[in-house]
Amino acid sequence: MGAHAPRGLVLFAHGARAAAWAAPFERLRDQAKARLPDAEVALAFLELMNPRLPEAVADMVDRGITEVTVVPVFLGQGGHLLRDLPQLADGLRAAHPQLKLHIAGAIGEDPGVQKAMADYCLQAFGTPSR
Amino acid sequence: MGAHAPRGLVLFAHGARAAAWAAPFERLRDQAKARLPDAEVALAFLELMNPRLPEAVADMVDRGITEVTVVPVFLGQGGHLLRDLPQLADGLRAAHPQLKLHIAGAIGEDPGVQKAMADYCLQAFGTPSR
Repeated sequence: MGAHAPRGLVLFAHGARAAAWAAPFERLRDQAKARLPDAEVALAFLELMNPRLPEAVADMVDRGITEVTVVPVFLGQGGHLLRDLPQLADGLRAAHPQLKLHIAGAIGEDPGVQKAMADYCLQAFGTPSR
Repeated sequence: MGAHAPRGLVLFAHGARAAAWAAPFERLRDQAKARLPDAEVALAFLELMNPRLPEAVADMVDRGITEVTVVPVFLGQGGHLLRDLPQLADGLRAAHPQLKLHIAGAIGEDPGVQKAMADYCLQAFGTPSR
């Protein structure tokens, strides 16, 4: 608590019906957790999977976390990030007025992620089979 | 045509109502195009945006392309990649029996993309503001 309360990182993803869909998001959470041993790291979903964002953040607040960064693990900024996430953020700020809440940009807009995706495209394209 | 027909790379994305959503996919297409000057590179969508995958591939075939690699620009493998894309691929193989069609794995499952996403999470998490 206080000056040394751990900070929270929430990876916010869409959610899907197929459980296997979550695998890369779980790996991302595990990688972030390994590299941020002093932070709380959690996955949260917009729909179809649990926990949803309000529950994940409330859980962190309950455990004394006073500052949370939400990283949208979405490729593009569509309605989910332009409308749904701001509404969710407003709700979180109203529910937890003491919480410092930061919302990052979509992961797919990051130049490093873009470069890695282009690398993968070239690798998948590979060498002509003829 | 023949032994020197260019190959095609199709970046297959979900599509969304918000036009701004497509920006990172368009940048990815442009980056891939710049790095593959001898290939045809196109974006195609599952829904909500055009062209859809069958149209994009038919257009390449019409222009003499005999080998196409489809890279799913999706983070996780949910129903769209487990069911919709295999059905689309079956349809493409039936419509273009001479075409060599390769379907890559989801871009979000690639270790290099995973690493870049984790880097972005740490960067977004940044330094405590307290």
